Amino acid sequence: PGKKVLIVYAHQEPKSFNGSLLKIAVEELTKQGCIVTVSDLYAMQFEPRATRNDIVGHLHNSEVFNYSVETWEAYKTGALSKDLVEEQKKVQEADLLIFQFPLFWFNMPAILKGWMDRVLVQGFAYDLSKAYDGGLLQDKLSLFSFTTGGTQETYSNKGINGDIRYVLWPIQHGIMHFCGVKVLEPHICYAPEHASEEKRKEMLTAWTQRLKTLWKEEPIDCSPEWYFK
Amino acid sequence: PGKKVLIVYAHQEPKSFNGSLLKIAVEELTKQGCIVTVSDLYAMQFEPRATRNDIVGHLHNSEVFNYSVETWEAYKTGALSKDLVEEQKKVQEADLLIFQFPLFWFNMPAILKGWMDRVLVQGFAYDLSKAYDGGLLQDKLSLFSFTTGGTQETYSNKGINGDIRYVLWPIQHGIMHFCGVKVLEPHICYAPEHASEEKRKEMLTAWTQRLKTLWKEEPIDCSPEWYFK
Repeated sequence: PGKKVLIVYAHQEPKSFNGSLLKIAVEELTKQGCIVTVSDLYAMQFEPRATRNDIVGHLHNSEVFNYSVETWEAYKTGALSKDLVEEQKKVQEADLLIFQFPLFWFNMPAILKGWMDRVLVQGFAYDLSKAYDGGLLQDKLSLFSFTTGGTQETYSNKGINGDIRYVLWPIQHGIMHFCGVKVLEPHICYAPEHASEEKRKEMLTAWTQRLKTLWKEEPIDCSPEWYFK
Repeated sequence: PGKKVLIVYAHQEPKSFNGSLLKIAVEELTKQGCIVTVSDLYAMQFEPRATRNDIVGHLHNSEVFNYSVETWEAYKTGALSKDLVEEQKKVQEADLLIFQFPLFWFNMPAILKGWMDRVLVQGFAYDLSKAYDGGLLQDKLSLFSFTTGGTQETYSNKGINGDIRYVLWPIQHGIMHFCGVKVLEPHICYAPEHASEEKRKEMLTAWTQRLKTLWKEEPIDCSPEWYFK
């Protein structure tokens, strides 16, 4: 109770299965007394492109545009664009970040990747030699909750898509762990579009159940062993 | 000679190291007699968001918007938006796809991920049970050419970022191999921003040299063994 949660949500359709998972999370966490904020990226028409527009006013080096350097400088001088500052504030205040999305091409949809690219800038999320366990967003938890098109069998060690954990390495380790954020077990709903109505309901119930005891969970050990055995 | 190459390029600055790598590829391949097309995503202000706007006219199901279903239907009836049709035509005509970009958060920048999300739709790039070796874009080659922020040591098996091949799994296997496209060895320039001018020149020369014998290369065996040993 009193914990702050930011849900970054990337689906176009409120009536989708992802929409139901979002609704469940908002309701269950609110019921627990958490303060829940949602960044509904499609509804916000969130900009995924990392461009010069992310810096207000003059550039540090207008001769050769370097996005990482420019946003780092702009972060320090308070010259990042308003939409980024707002997202950073939400991240800063949150105890837990939940990312809710459909897996698109073995990764998050571009609109959510753009959120990572633009919001988690140097100075804010990490810094010179402040990465991984020294990252700047320590004391925060993260949880990737997503749906897949393929079945669980295809995402197994022997399946054609390979172990689902292979897909999680760039996301959980490369982004969250890099920023010092601890990672809870992912929540994966396999192929809801091809599941029976009964199976879909079971999956939704399982998410509600998991959320009830979420705050008692321990983060995973985000090392190569977890991903590649 | 006569081979068609599509370079999908995702950097904001022509004077960047990525810009130099692009220039080299265009020049060297043109010199060989190849027909080279460039999709310069930032210059095109390419839209990375997968939305209803990608379908011209009526939706198949306007009650519940499902991007995958709608774009599949739109592909079949010729109702995809003009920018997607143009990119698909370029892909269709190409013998080789080169992706040139800076690695952003262990993956491609959102603008390029959006190109994958929106261009490689069902019906065009894959179909029901037509995936991987049965994918629809067979007889094409692909090559991921990218720069990193971290050094080669950090992207090794014992390094903090893990083996660089872990990062390539979702991109090469999950996207290209899924569509039936064969994958050439990636071309990686580690940390050019922190390299000496001499070292940077060496890296550019190495790219020119590689391109000279590119058409003699054999694709990698895109199986879990290549990525995870």
